[in-house]
Amino acid sequence: MAKISSTVFSLRHFLVLSLALNVSLILRIVYEGEEGHDNSCLKNETGNSISRADFDTKTHNILKSRVVMSSTLSSGNSTCKYHTGSRNKVINLDHGDPTVYERFWRQRGDKSTIIISGWQSMSYFSDVSNICWFLETEFAKEVVRLHTLVGNAVTEGRHIVVGTGSSQLFLAALYALSPQHSPQPINVVCASPYYSSYPSMTDYLKSGLYKWGGNADSYEKEGPYIEVVTSPNNPDGHVRRSKVNRSEGLLLHDLAYYWPQYTPISSPADYDLTLFTLSKTTGHAGMRIGWALVKDKEVAKKMTKFIELNTIGVSKDSQLRAAKVLRAVSDSCEEENSQEGESFFKFSHNLMANRWKQLREVVDSSQLFSLPQFSPAFCNFFNQVVEPQPAFVWLKCEGNVEDCEKFLRAHNIITRSGKHFGVSRKYVRISLLDTDENFNQFVDRLSTIQSL
Amino acid sequence: MAKISSTVFSLRHFLVLSLALNVSLILRIVYEGEEGHDNSCLKNETGNSISRADFDTKTHNILKSRVVMSSTLSSGNSTCKYHTGSRNKVINLDHGDPTVYERFWRQRGDKSTIIISGWQSMSYFSDVSNICWFLETEFAKEVVRLHTLVGNAVTEGRHIVVGTGSSQLFLAALYALSPQHSPQPINVVCASPYYSSYPSMTDYLKSGLYKWGGNADSYEKEGPYIEVVTSPNNPDGHVRRSKVNRSEGLLLHDLAYYWPQYTPISSPADYDLTLFTLSKTTGHAGMRIGWALVKDKEVAKKMTKFIELNTIGVSKDSQLRAAKVLRAVSDSCEEENSQEGESFFKFSHNLMANRWKQLREVVDSSQLFSLPQFSPAFCNFFNQVVEPQPAFVWLKCEGNVEDCEKFLRAHNIITRSGKHFGVSRKYVRISLLDTDENFNQFVDRLSTIQSL
Repeated sequence: MAKISSTVFSLRHFLVLSLALNVSLILRIVYEGEEGHDNSCLKNETGNSISRADFDTKTHNILKSRVVMSSTLSSGNSTCKYHTGSRNKVINLDHGDPTVYERFWRQRGDKSTIIISGWQSMSYFSDVSNICWFLETEFAKEVVRLHTLVGNAVTEGRHIVVGTGSSQLFLAALYALSPQHSPQPINVVCASPYYSSYPSMTDYLKSGLYKWGGNADSYEKEGPYIEVVTSPNNPDGHVRRSKVNRSEGLLLHDLAYYWPQYTPISSPADYDLTLFTLSKTTGHAGMRIGWALVKDKEVAKKMTKFIELNTIGVSKDSQLRAAKVLRAVSDSCEEENSQEGESFFKFSHNLMANRWKQLREVVDSSQLFSLPQFSPAFCNFFNQVVEPQPAFVWLKCEGNVEDCEKFLRAHNIITRSGKHFGVSRKYVRISLLDTDENFNQFVDRLSTIQSL
Repeated sequence: MAKISSTVFSLRHFLVLSLALNVSLILRIVYEGEEGHDNSCLKNETGNSISRADFDTKTHNILKSRVVMSSTLSSGNSTCKYHTGSRNKVINLDHGDPTVYERFWRQRGDKSTIIISGWQSMSYFSDVSNICWFLETEFAKEVVRLHTLVGNAVTEGRHIVVGTGSSQLFLAALYALSPQHSPQPINVVCASPYYSSYPSMTDYLKSGLYKWGGNADSYEKEGPYIEVVTSPNNPDGHVRRSKVNRSEGLLLHDLAYYWPQYTPISSPADYDLTLFTLSKTTGHAGMRIGWALVKDKEVAKKMTKFIELNTIGVSKDSQLRAAKVLRAVSDSCEEENSQEGESFFKFSHNLMANRWKQLREVVDSSQLFSLPQFSPAFCNFFNQVVEPQPAFVWLKCEGNVEDCEKFLRAHNIITRSGKHFGVSRKYVRISLLDTDENFNQFVDRLSTIQSL
């Protein structure tokens, strides 16, 4: 019995593998033809070649993955060569480094290039008439324009607070929402699986203002609390609403992935406090730019105060560049309407659709893994029914595999274990925002894993 | 008796006023001729015109000064005009916004201009082989080059950690130096007068790791502590050494002002942990770039960890721009040696020397105020004996004036009271890094204050 199913499995597997390889090779030829080079080859501490690491704030994993990489690569291998299907190459998809979008920005050429003279933007101040006095007016304007165009958030009646990535804004929001004179820190909760960095970000300074309160599903304490609602959720991609839903709850909506390439845009988000980040919107993680839409003036003031005390404002250079990039995104949408080219969201939506298609084909042909199922829904932006296609794969190891991260690591695929997200080790989170190179190698590798 | 001294005072005063006005007018003609415009005219929340505010992290003062400005300016004054000597114009020198250096960077033209394409610097990562994985290699290189050239810090055997301004690095250092499992937070101390933001930055999150312990001069508790040594000191400009000097002390050196324009460079700083910031070095406060030189590898790792959890790295755009600006500074020094132009430090040193000269003339002619006295010393960078000329004026109101800030505010000069620096209200801190416009008006105004 075992022998028969193994034979059947192998035949199906080879078909899928062959298809995946074809797609992979075609994409690679196209990609390399356009790029002319590959810069995803870096060196680790020991001088060994490693693939570009990926990131998403579960930061101690960087060092962990470095150790793994140096131990799995042969020492003295000083050139970086990729061999599709080579099982020795470590594929690191632990972090969510959104390098997948680089191709779009290369294609756009100079439209998003920024030039800053040495004498520009020297002052701490951007606009002293604004509560968020370090907010660049151009950036704020483009944020409003893009939200209006995409229809994913209400900006009217909101204060914009810019942050050094949405991480800083998450902390600023905790500071602003916490009672300042309470004898006990307020609990911060989120339904599991929750973003793996929330607990450590909340607790690393042992603040007397707030502390991590765990899974919102099982939270039953009395009194005020802060609930983080991540929608679509990181890691599992599902659309979410508040879970605790009691009168003294303060809600913090992390909408980093509420963009058309990841999920159908059903209606403009209309919450008290929402966070967005350029990293996941356009792929510019290195800029460290996020923004919050804040209904309450006092909360916006306190968030601004946090950023003053934390970093005295936010890089003007990056805000100006972010304005240019957001403008290019909005322009690409408007140009597309006049038949002049592909919009950023069409490009990124197609790209994610292709990746999810390839991935589902491989996973569906395997009995070792399973993926979450999503319901298609009408997207107001694309004006049609589309499927959710999250930035992360929330993969479950079926059968007897109890530690999915360990299992995949043995196959030189680095992922992030479910344990970091407050759930079982049978799950792992895998980035789908990495380079074509790494994604294709990942799909190839996954398709070769036939049994325990 | 009172009448006679008043007459003598008035004659001396008019001579100084006349001289100050001449210098002011000449500078303004030169300045406006070069600039062709003035952008220091902003509007406050009520729509009134206000001068460009200045900043230095005593951040609640922004709002305070706004209130003052809107109450002292007539409502509906929608155009921004400066009248030298007009007592109605509010001069805000509370913050240390280093806009004074803008002129140098304009003169340098394209040499410090940066161009960044839309597809560049997208990844979170800069150099995964470095402990500080988000540190841009070019920036690190220019930091080492400039320190070597200026001779103000040892970089050999140091890890460079880049931060979103030195504020973030101050917090990162507290996190890294604090014992992680101590039942009590470690005390953070600094001799008064200390930088007004240290207490609030240390305590705003009510951390269980560290807390503000007050004046280092009177600190006598047993056990470990962190002592911040700011040299030259903000606010008073004096060169400093550790005060507590006990075995369990951990030292954090804030050397933001240890540059040739402010103080003689006596020897390369050779401490365990030193902080620098671009804001005070080159005047680029809006970039939010600082760096730490860290001897201990584990401390550098923990500081990096703090920045990961706080902001997941530091703007790459600003690091790249900072590299370009630092390169321009170093180039200007090397070009000067070959007689090709004025170096940044010569420009800024001359500028500060002129300001201090003007200021001392006015203050010396008054019996209402006094300034700190500094001893000239040999500067290894300029290769000659020079006088200290701090970025801030630490002004004392003599005689019966007990609240110097209040006294000057009545003359529409906004300063920062000594009480924020842990000392008497007879002192105020005044920024000397503001625009020529504001500085000249300040000197004019000060010279008109003859009596209580």
